[in-house]
Amino acid sequence: MMNQNLIFTNDVERALQRLIAAGGHNMTVFVADVNTARFSLGRERLVVIPDSEKGKSLETVSRVWDALEDYGVTRHSLIVNLGGGMVTDLGGFAAATFKRGVRFINVPTTLLCAVDAAVGGKTGINYHGLKNEIGAFAPASDVIISTRFFDTLPIEEMKSGFAEVLKHAMLSDRDELLRLLDHDFHAPINHDDLLEHLRRSVQVKVDIVTRDPNERGERKALNLGHTIGHAFESLAMQRGKPVPHGYAVAWGLVTEAVLSHLLLKFPSNDVHLLGNFVRDNYRDFPFTCDDYDELLALMRHDKKSRDGEITCTLLSTIGDYHIDQTVTTDDVTAALDILRDLLGL
Amino acid sequence: MMNQNLIFTNDVERALQRLIAAGGHNMTVFVADVNTARFSLGRERLVVIPDSEKGKSLETVSRVWDALEDYGVTRHSLIVNLGGGMVTDLGGFAAATFKRGVRFINVPTTLLCAVDAAVGGKTGINYHGLKNEIGAFAPASDVIISTRFFDTLPIEEMKSGFAEVLKHAMLSDRDELLRLLDHDFHAPINHDDLLEHLRRSVQVKVDIVTRDPNERGERKALNLGHTIGHAFESLAMQRGKPVPHGYAVAWGLVTEAVLSHLLLKFPSNDVHLLGNFVRDNYRDFPFTCDDYDELLALMRHDKKSRDGEITCTLLSTIGDYHIDQTVTTDDVTAALDILRDLLGL
Repeated sequence: MMNQNLIFTNDVERALQRLIAAGGHNMTVFVADVNTARFSLGRERLVVIPDSEKGKSLETVSRVWDALEDYGVTRHSLIVNLGGGMVTDLGGFAAATFKRGVRFINVPTTLLCAVDAAVGGKTGINYHGLKNEIGAFAPASDVIISTRFFDTLPIEEMKSGFAEVLKHAMLSDRDELLRLLDHDFHAPINHDDLLEHLRRSVQVKVDIVTRDPNERGERKALNLGHTIGHAFESLAMQRGKPVPHGYAVAWGLVTEAVLSHLLLKFPSNDVHLLGNFVRDNYRDFPFTCDDYDELLALMRHDKKSRDGEITCTLLSTIGDYHIDQTVTTDDVTAALDILRDLLGL
Repeated sequence: MMNQNLIFTNDVERALQRLIAAGGHNMTVFVADVNTARFSLGRERLVVIPDSEKGKSLETVSRVWDALEDYGVTRHSLIVNLGGGMVTDLGGFAAATFKRGVRFINVPTTLLCAVDAAVGGKTGINYHGLKNEIGAFAPASDVIISTRFFDTLPIEEMKSGFAEVLKHAMLSDRDELLRLLDHDFHAPINHDDLLEHLRRSVQVKVDIVTRDPNERGERKALNLGHTIGHAFESLAMQRGKPVPHGYAVAWGLVTEAVLSHLLLKFPSNDVHLLGNFVRDNYRDFPFTCDDYDELLALMRHDKKSRDGEITCTLLSTIGDYHIDQTVTTDDVTAALDILRDLLGL
């Protein structure tokens, strides 16, 4: 099922033209958001969706289905999702469910999407304020990964995606992690270098997903940082003051590194290296100890939780992950305290 | 993917209890319609949906998702769809998309559902008046097939399901088809005999679906009777005078048998045997030659069509099927004329 063709290139248009020409489809429809529509190069059939997390809704999916119907899309058509994770998640879900499944390609235009949402077959929408509550496992047939779109990406978008790149390094390779922790977000992008980092980063995800496409076991490794991170993200969304996904993940990664130290003797030196980078680059952390109860409640409601227990992926060392680790309220409270110390708050 | 456990039994409650006990789920939720809710034996967690084709909508799916959320369903829960095709199609789609997929069991309570919808992994809902326009390929983990529910089934429901049983015999076994054409809908049900017919009938579908779960090729064999049948069904629905699915399929089977004779020399003797049975049991055919244009337009809009061409599965003999057969407007017009002759209209 996880048979995805990944293309790393900075000549996106050429890669896209080849895929479209080779597919023998009767029609190609682009799905983009209000910002990424300009990358569609005047394609005739284009569905434009909102770019806000709030728009990642059943109503928007319905509007995409309506457009696909109006264009006369059949099972022999091709859909190209051109945008960030919102576009690939929602466009992928729309494609996967329209006539029970139309082939689709992802062209991620953000770093976050390139290393996370675009690859691995998770699609979905938010429902009743719960992230990706409705969705399907449905992989894009092809993903074209390029850094070409990132020159105009706001710095907080780059940081957001970079948190997932850090996560993949934490799951696999300490040397790569150390190289990444040298990254300077204010320097101009070195496209060749970054594309190589992406190639390594995406491969970590692909290797894990290939072994466990439907998240029965090992794939949970990719939830590193996310049990705690999603709670931050959901709380911020509930308050109408959303934070970028990757910021929440960065805070989650540090918190879960602390938990790893407390429970699995993960080296405190690596906790500090990571903590320093997150302090320097992801500082604006809008939570206090008054929020702990609500954060804990959100963790218990997580898709990954079972019987109201909080479970995380934790590390014994960089590269050595342990899924389904149960953590107590006290563990989480202690870790959140330490997180706030590490971030200097 | 098509790893379905099929249980043929007339002790449904025992089979169900075993599956629930063996699964280690944190919770079981039943989905039923207003008629089949009584079979749920006082189960605590029950979602009741409408029993009309009109209720097979996105709104109803949303209501099921809401109920699953209220019950606190997780990925470790179990959903039991207890009802006809509407319940297994919609309940299956709701389960397949809730948190990207919760395990579900189908317990078909109609003959039609037992031999068709419940088995094989197609789920879906209607959208803008188009049947199963939105859906997913997502197999129930287990299907409990029983004739126990059929004693109280209206005769037109039995006839409706029987058309799919005829279809499976046409795809596989002339002797079985001849035995079926002796069936008397007014005689009391012989449960042991009928369960054996079901076992053979369902196996035909399972064999085909196992070889082609996502309908890339051979699975289209199961569309025998359905390209034309769906057009009858859609037209009747558009007019607000729905006909039972299997009646439309029965008419579709005869029409496509005629097309098979015209294009692939399918024996006219077998066309007549089938035509006589359909004339005697599915006579109330509410279409005239004035409806041909609209029927042809619907056939061209079928999910199975490509580039506006009408394609059917046709037979050269009983058991020897040919998918993706293109038929012309003239072919269909001729076949519809002959259908009306055969039905004595």
